[in-house]
Amino acid sequence: MPTTSLLLAWQLKGKRVLIVGGGDVASGRLESVLAAEAMVTLISPRRGLHSKTLSLLQQNPDHVLYHDRDFSAVQDLEGVDMVLTAIDDPNVSRSICNLARESRIPVNVADIPHLCDFYFGSQIQRGNLQILISTNGQSPKLANIIKKQIESNLPESVAKAIENVGVLRAKLRERAPGIGGEVGKKRMRWMIDVCNQWSLDDLALLDDEGIERMLDLGWEKGTVISTSEAGIPSSSRLKLPECALPVVTGFLAGSLITCLAVTARQWR
Amino acid sequence: MPTTSLLLAWQLKGKRVLIVGGGDVASGRLESVLAAEAMVTLISPRRGLHSKTLSLLQQNPDHVLYHDRDFSAVQDLEGVDMVLTAIDDPNVSRSICNLARESRIPVNVADIPHLCDFYFGSQIQRGNLQILISTNGQSPKLANIIKKQIESNLPESVAKAIENVGVLRAKLRERAPGIGGEVGKKRMRWMIDVCNQWSLDDLALLDDEGIERMLDLGWEKGTVISTSEAGIPSSSRLKLPECALPVVTGFLAGSLITCLAVTARQWR
Repeated sequence: MPTTSLLLAWQLKGKRVLIVGGGDVASGRLESVLAAEAMVTLISPRRGLHSKTLSLLQQNPDHVLYHDRDFSAVQDLEGVDMVLTAIDDPNVSRSICNLARESRIPVNVADIPHLCDFYFGSQIQRGNLQILISTNGQSPKLANIIKKQIESNLPESVAKAIENVGVLRAKLRERAPGIGGEVGKKRMRWMIDVCNQWSLDDLALLDDEGIERMLDLGWEKGTVISTSEAGIPSSSRLKLPECALPVVTGFLAGSLITCLAVTARQWR
Repeated sequence: MPTTSLLLAWQLKGKRVLIVGGGDVASGRLESVLAAEAMVTLISPRRGLHSKTLSLLQQNPDHVLYHDRDFSAVQDLEGVDMVLTAIDDPNVSRSICNLARESRIPVNVADIPHLCDFYFGSQIQRGNLQILISTNGQSPKLANIIKKQIESNLPESVAKAIENVGVLRAKLRERAPGIGGEVGKKRMRWMIDVCNQWSLDDLALLDDEGIERMLDLGWEKGTVISTSEAGIPSSSRLKLPECALPVVTGFLAGSLITCLAVTARQWR
């Protein structure tokens, strides 16, 4: 039975990440850490660079420092906050891992679990929404299959809804500033009420004016306004339940077949 | 626009985690890191301990070292691999954060984002499956709502399917040992084929004998056997599509109403 991991959203903005290797796996690592706005050092002989790695290097000259050589020594770890290796030589991988651990730098060695302080998993991203699916190393392929299922069930509106709630929270904090304490609790309770009473679809339809109305007519009076009060067109709330189409189809088919049966009987 | 995080599955087995604080938030942190088999040091005056914290301390005497006092000095960070603070005093929090960062220890200060090297998010766990939902700090409540939606859509069979695939992979590695290279690639391709060709429900029904058959009749011959060859009862594969019930209901309703209409007309 493998050990449960602690799933975390790691902040890499402005941190320095060392990637050793330039192949297919390394290109995926590079893409992930660049998305998190890390400053990257990539060490790999140019002949080993995957085309994806090469184009990421070319697209991000300000964020990647590239060295056309093999990993040399502990000096390569100076000032580094995270180490990712993706090379074919397990001995070199092991020695890099040991050096990183001696310097207390978190390290991941691709494909060698016991040399990893953390694992990557299947990820979904929709705007500010990020989802990590991990099977604790039991089956990366099933993690990928589950990821696709989750992705296909995510409502289209989810990214926009999160963005709008983020704007609402920021504006609320301007109106009622302060860290923690009573005002913090009151803000948190009101935001929870908003998210509970409004659907993701409706939250996604909020515009600047609607957000101001929520604060003027809702927060100031200690209540949550309705979607129509916020100026959301009512059509958006007229949603048929998912079972509507099969029920109607079944109904029409049942009716038609009964009609045909009755007619056939009368013609006999 | 907030920065994207790098979502990671952090390995804490045997690592030392320092938790400063003993309230409600601290109890949640304690529960999470104990689940990941960390060795914990918890520092908090006894009067500040939440009942949940207290019972976790009592249930895990071998994994938690408890100090009935406030955080004192940098010595408290000796040998520590991760620091989590959840106390009400932002000044003490800030100084602990600074000390941790000077010692290159990853730190999370509850409720003060810029003092966090990583964030927690909403989590789902089903056996070896772990899912993290993060909105990058935009809306913890929406993360929680999305978590519940994902949870309700996860098939019941998912944990068992992952467990069985884990066993299958381990047994396969015994039959065809070796790290990387051709055999590694062949193993990976076969496991991907198995996961693509079998549903989660069927994978969940595999027993030890079925797993041996998959290896004997499948792997050895370079193919993936069918569920019936593995001894999975065919009834499990006879699943009605989700729309079946509404279609049938609609059909019967349509038929009934048409019958009634025809009968009523004949009686007129």
